[in-house]
Amino acid sequence: MQGTPVRKASGGFHWEGVDTLSYKDEGSAPFRDVTRQVLFEEAADGAQWRYFEVAPGGWSTLERHEHTHAVMVLRGRGRCLVGEGVYDISERDLVEVPPMTWHQFRAAPDAPLGFLCLVSSERDRPRLPDAAALAQLRRLPQVAAFLDGETA
Amino acid sequence: MQGTPVRKASGGFHWEGVDTLSYKDEGSAPFRDVTRQVLFEEAADGAQWRYFEVAPGGWSTLERHEHTHAVMVLRGRGRCLVGEGVYDISERDLVEVPPMTWHQFRAAPDAPLGFLCLVSSERDRPRLPDAAALAQLRRLPQVAAFLDGETA
Repeated sequence: MQGTPVRKASGGFHWEGVDTLSYKDEGSAPFRDVTRQVLFEEAADGAQWRYFEVAPGGWSTLERHEHTHAVMVLRGRGRCLVGEGVYDISERDLVEVPPMTWHQFRAAPDAPLGFLCLVSSERDRPRLPDAAALAQLRRLPQVAAFLDGETA
Repeated sequence: MQGTPVRKASGGFHWEGVDTLSYKDEGSAPFRDVTRQVLFEEAADGAQWRYFEVAPGGWSTLERHEHTHAVMVLRGRGRCLVGEGVYDISERDLVEVPPMTWHQFRAAPDAPLGFLCLVSSERDRPRLPDAAALAQLRRLPQVAAFLDGETA
């Protein structure tokens, strides 16, 4: 638990006592303009509650893993890839990423995409697509367009 | 997992495929004007992610239990009691309720209080205060004023 029961939101999408962190180590995986804040290290038995913000035009890593994501958009808008589906998302929309499902979040060119993301505290490392997996994904025109950052 | 990866927010603080439920069975515990929506039955291993909305002037049950709450205010404003502290809360503020800590949420007289609340899927039943516990809480003037619904 934190030292105080209540931590106020401050300056928009920041919180008292919550550091704004880099999304991942630079160079460890492809991404652009993403920050990470851990709101609750231990949100319920074994869950970590985070807030990610993707700057306009930015995108998270295309990856998959055994653990699931439960997501709620908190700010702005953009699109996401989940499996072979591409979805427009905006404030308060819910996204569920099943195990071992390719996924990526992209902010709109002119708006950030901020979202809450819940994960298990104990989780496996994300895996990146190899050339074959990428080629497989790109066979679907809507997925290829998404990966190329084309907006609908 | 749900049938579709994305469930859009609709009509404000409702979501596709998410029912608006009563907070608790009427008469099972004291409360006023609270609704409950389960956003993710299984948000991360063993976590349930809910949205509660307390109508203006309403309040949740004063209770405590072994399980913890991780809360983010999503809409409106109000006050909460956590232990012996009374806190003003508004959009995006974070609240952490430790084990076996008395707590209650009250909406402002003129605004709803909507909040996300994360709990463990397997959790103990809430316990209500007996007369002695209530008397103990009421020794603190700020707590007595809160329980009486007085606004600061």
